[in-house]
Formats: sequence, C-alpha cells, structure tokens
Amino acid sequence: MGINKFVMPEVIFGNGSISQIGESCLRLGAKKVFIVSDPNVIQTNWYNEITKSIEQAGLHYVNYNELTINPKDFEVEKGTQSYLENECDAVIGVGGGSTIDVAKGIAILSTNEGTIQSFEGIDKITTPLPPQIMIPTTAGSGSEVSQFTILVDSTRKIKMTIVSKSLVPDIAIIDPSVLSTKDAQLTASTGLDVLTHAIEAFVSVASTPLTDVHAQNAISLVADYLRPSVASKLNIEAKTKMAMASLQAGLAFSNAILGAVHAMSHAVGGRFDMLHGEVNAVLLPYVMEYNLLACPDKFAHIAQLLGEDIQGLTSIEAGRTAVAFVRDLSIDIGAPQRLSDMGLKEDLEAYIPELSQVALNDACMITNPRDIFLKDVDSLFRQAL
Amino acid sequence: MGINKFVMPEVIFGNGSISQIGESCLRLGAKKVFIVSDPNVIQTNWYNEITKSIEQAGLHYVNYNELTINPKDFEVEKGTQSYLENECDAVIGVGGGSTIDVAKGIAILSTNEGTIQSFEGIDKITTPLPPQIMIPTTAGSGSEVSQFTILVDSTRKIKMTIVSKSLVPDIAIIDPSVLSTKDAQLTASTGLDVLTHAIEAFVSVASTPLTDVHAQNAISLVADYLRPSVASKLNIEAKTKMAMASLQAGLAFSNAILGAVHAMSHAVGGRFDMLHGEVNAVLLPYVMEYNLLACPDKFAHIAQLLGEDIQGLTSIEAGRTAVAFVRDLSIDIGAPQRLSDMGLKEDLEAYIPELSQVALNDACMITNPRDIFLKDVDSLFRQAL
Repeated sequence: MGINKFVMPEVIFGNGSISQIGESCLRLGAKKVFIVSDPNVIQTNWYNEITKSIEQAGLHYVNYNELTINPKDFEVEKGTQSYLENECDAVIGVGGGSTIDVAKGIAILSTNEGTIQSFEGIDKITTPLPPQIMIPTTAGSGSEVSQFTILVDSTRKIKMTIVSKSLVPDIAIIDPSVLSTKDAQLTASTGLDVLTHAIEAFVSVASTPLTDVHAQNAISLVADYLRPSVASKLNIEAKTKMAMASLQAGLAFSNAILGAVHAMSHAVGGRFDMLHGEVNAVLLPYVMEYNLLACPDKFAHIAQLLGEDIQGLTSIEAGRTAVAFVRDLSIDIGAPQRLSDMGLKEDLEAYIPELSQVALNDACMITNPRDIFLKDVDSLFRQAL
Repeated sequence: MGINKFVMPEVIFGNGSISQIGESCLRLGAKKVFIVSDPNVIQTNWYNEITKSIEQAGLHYVNYNELTINPKDFEVEKGTQSYLENECDAVIGVGGGSTIDVAKGIAILSTNEGTIQSFEGIDKITTPLPPQIMIPTTAGSGSEVSQFTILVDSTRKIKMTIVSKSLVPDIAIIDPSVLSTKDAQLTASTGLDVLTHAIEAFVSVASTPLTDVHAQNAISLVADYLRPSVASKLNIEAKTKMAMASLQAGLAFSNAILGAVHAMSHAVGGRFDMLHGEVNAVLLPYVMEYNLLACPDKFAHIAQLLGEDIQGLTSIEAGRTAVAFVRDLSIDIGAPQRLSDMGLKEDLEAYIPELSQVALNDACMITNPRDIFLKDVDSLFRQAL
C-alpha cells in the first residue's frame, strides 16, 4: 500500500439538523451568505426554516435558483456575478448534486480569476475559496462531502471534472427529514447513484482501507433500505439510512475516485440533459460485468454486503450474484433498464463513437479496475442502449 | 437519533508518508515550524527524515523535546515561550499521545491569553489556532485526529480535559513504518489503549452511526493484529493494521467521547506518572463487566467483532465472552493485570477515595452508558487494585 490521503468536511447529521445553519454560518465568520438552490426547493417549508435560521443569526442572504437538471457553466457565471454584486462572503448550496456543484463553481470564480473551464482537472485552484456549507436534499450525489465539482461545458457539450481539496466544503448539513419531499423516481435514481458511487469506489484502483470502510457500509445500507425508501415518502427510518448511505458513499468516492460508469455517464450527461442517477443505474450492471475479471474477490465481497449467500461459490460466481442483485433492485424500484428508455428525442446510437471517446478521456476512467479501450466503451454503450 | 456532528483532520496514511511533511507545512502557509517531540524520538532515523523534508521545502524549524511520560502544564508553558520567542507560525507534534497533547496545548497558548487551566472544559478556545500537523509514533492515543487534549495540572495533580473543534489538527500524518521502533511493552499498552478507545466510543451514549463504523473496525483490527504486532518489531503488516486501528478508534472517540475507563484512568494519571495505556488495560475488563447491564446487545456485538462465536448465547452471555477475550488478550501480550503490579511506590489504596471523586467529575464520565456513583467507582478501583 502506498501513501493515501483522506479528507472530509465537518458533518452535521440528523433530523432537524438544518436548524444548525445559522450558527454554522456565524462560526465560519459569514455576514452575507449566497444561497444556491432550485425553483422546487425554495417552495418547501424546510427552505423557509433555513432562511429563518440564517436571519435569526443576524445574517443577510441572497438567493440564486435559476438552475436546471445538470449544472452548467453559464449558471456558475451568472451566479458568480450576483455573488460579487451583492458582496457576499460565503456560499451555501441547498439542493441535489447539480445545485451543490454550481455552488462550488461559484465559490471558485468568486476568488479566482479566469473562466470555470480553466480549473478543469486536478489541483488547478490556487486562491483559497470563501466558506462553503452544503445541504443535500436528494441523498445521492455525495458532492456535499467531496473534493469534486462536475460542470457542463455548454459549448463543448461535455462534463468537466474539477478536483481540489479546496472544494471539500467546510460543513455538510445532512438532514434526512428534507428527503421526504422527493418523489419515487428521484428517490430511485439518486439511490442507485449512491450504490454506483459505493461500488465504483470499492473496486477503484485508488481505494484505501479508510474508503473501503465507508464504501462497504454504503453498499449494505442501500441493499437494505433503498426499496422501502422508494416505497414510502413517510418511511423516515429508510430515508435516514439512505442519507447515511449517501454520505458514506460520498466519503468513499471523494477519496478513492470512481470508474467507467461515471466516465460514461459524464459523457452522456454532457451531451444530453438526462438524469445522472438514471444513466448510472442503466450502465452499472454492464460495467460490473466488464470489471468482474479484474477483481473477482472484491465483487464477491460486494455480493456478501448486498446480502447474497455466496457459500460454495467461486469468486467469479459470487460476483455475478452481485450483478444480478443490482439488476433486480433496479427493476423493483422502477428505474429505466436501457438508455433508449429514457425519453431522449435524439438517436443515441449515432452518438456512441463520440460519447465513447469523451468517456475514455474522463478523469474517472483512470481509476477503473480493468483496462479499458475505445472498443470496450463502445461495446458497453451498445449493450446498454 | 438527534443531531450529531463529526469532524476529522485531513489524513495522510501509509508507509513513507512522513516524507509529505514539508509539502504539508507549505500547503498550510507555514514559514517557521515548531516541532514538539521527545528525547527518544529525536534519536531516530525517521526524525531526521522529517526535519530534512521540512528543510527541503525551504522552511525553518525549532525543536522542543523536554517532555515526560504524561503531558504537563509547565511543559506547555515552557514550549509556548519558546514558540513565541522564535516567532514560529505552525505547530508539529511528533511522538506519542503526550507529545501531541503538549503540542496542542502550545497551539492554544500561542494565540490565546490566559493559563492553560483557563481552557479546561468544552469550547473555551475563542481565538483561532496556528496550523497544526501531528505525526503519531505509537499507534495509540488517537490525539492526532481528535478534538481533545488531556494535560496534567501539576498543582492540583489532576488531568484536565480540553475539548474544542479547533484542537482537531489540520493534517495527521500516520506512517506505520515509524512504529517499528517501539518496544513490546509500549506496543502492548498503546494497543490496549486503542481497544479501550474503540470499546468506550462504541458503547458511549454519544455514539452515532458514523462513529460506530470506525469503532467496529478498530475493534476487529485490534483482535486480529495486536498480538502479532507485540510479537515482532518487523511485522510491518501488523503495525500498519494497528496504525489504522488507532486512527479509526481516534475518529470514533473524538466524536463519540469515552467512558468510565478513561475517567478513572485520567484520575490515576493525574496523580501518579503511570503509563496511560497500561492503566486503561487494567481497568477495561472491570468497567466492561460493570457496563454490560446497560447495553448487552452492544457488548454481544463487540464479542462478534472480536471473533467470538456467540451463536446460541443470550446477549449478556455473549457480552461476557467479550470481557473474557479482553482479559486473555491482555495476559497474552504481557500487560499488567492489577494497578498494584505497576511498580508504584505509593500505597494506591489510600488514594482510592480521592481518585474516585476526581474520576466522577471527569468529562469522560458523562458519556458512560451505565449510571455510576461514587461507591461504584470506588468498588471498581478496589477490584482492579
């Protein structure tokens, strides 16, 4: 084992924890905070609680919520303009992964010169960022604890990956009670995103004992609690467990990075405005089958964590039960099974050569456990079509 | 479950990771660092590597190593004077728990007015501290990741507990290869300290799902690797696993706090200069027996983590096998079995009423899972005598 690093923000976790936002802003020295959210979020009761807590702490705030389902460069630029015009001094993201990623992008441009494109890659941010507090509302992206932001370059139509320790927020406030406003489709897709994070981090070539601990826990929690969480908005135990799964999967992948599912999903999501979690859900079992050859023992371990009885099976056989489990889970919770099921108007097949090339160059491909070439990515896309 | 918080430093883990110290200091903006260590540490080869890495980064350093086996108030005061006279701007602790606790104390007094006594308790530190990097050399205390420093008040002869998020270091560098310079006695006592941290954090009334994950892992690792780590200085796999156990036990107790073992051990360690890990090792099985009543299921789970076959046993019966495991482990690795075996010149029995009162007032007693009164502490001390 070489040298490995692990970073995470301060985490405040539990039902009612959004009430800590005012005090948290104060603790970080904020006076006027910039809240990034989306049009649905600002209509909820708990969003009011957040702004009330901020006001009660004697702070001012500005809201910015002109966001779409994937986080775009121009949304970051427009937000930064507003942040600077309003002379804010801290960034708060309240929403799903896209919202948090836009909030991080605004944090970058608020103190660093240049376009958001100039920070693509690893460790390109040189000037310290303002305090960042993230409040995830989907139990999915893990962005609230990660050193990543994934933003769409709307000209090139690709998702850019920006990695830096300064993107690890100062505080992540994870309140499972806000998850009860999600519908079943969003609960399903974000839940499968969590599973994808955990599995890709666990088999990543950059995994470490510390990331494994979190990946393993996340896998078990998804196996036990994703179905009941999709089944009922009111099952707060299942929501709490899925929020914990999302947190731990986020800690795992932030430090172990991901693999081919995310590389391919970023390519698709950069080109078309599709739900990230759903694209991952379709691709995951195909990529698991492909990667099985590289680390059968790890996939056998995943099968155990998912609750499969693997006694008497070889590692390869046990690993295949993990793939089958993921397929069954995905069907049970009504996730799409093929990329062509997702209501896209364009002919996806015609884009496969281009998407495959983009995926191959994605930063997440570097840590995929099995060597992968253009023809392999192409073949995986065709299988999932 | 209420609202709970979890904080940890950036962790750099792995053989050879001490080479990262220079770059780490630079990253935190340090120019002249104050290194706290002890007379044994400065004679090792790897200490030279640390100072070389700092010099190669173009930084200056000052060394302070006039420390004893428990961290004392006057050692903090003297160190602070040197820190200020030399106009240092960052604190590095290289050593066991005592060294790291003194380094944290110096960090407090370097920017805050008042005696070290005035910061005793929770959240008394108001001014931000200088950057802190800790390099543990004993795989025991967990102080490199915790929000605690435990310092002896040499006048009152008690151990003061200081708790603050600002005591969580910025970076913890954990290099298992430095552990091979420890002798068997120190490996045994610090290893049992790790087990005590993990068990007390797991049964603490302030435990959370995130602290449980780390506590559980630490317990399993100690069960598997403490014996071989004591048996051979050269077993680097065992040292690496024990370093990981120490780290995870530290993450658990930093956020879940501890219990009666530590409360009592602090009382003893404040009065007499005894090895903290050894005092814990003696007290642990007695306190486990006492606490079993409060949470038999948790103790049954501990038994499982220790590798006991608990099938067909009630929780209480299973919990008792955990106590027996700890006793056997402690005997196997040659740890003292009674407080009177530890070479103390004074008549410990005469001090029991006083020690019991001090232990009852210790901050760690608050999170003990079973209600505890003066007569109970007195009785536990007498059992362990």
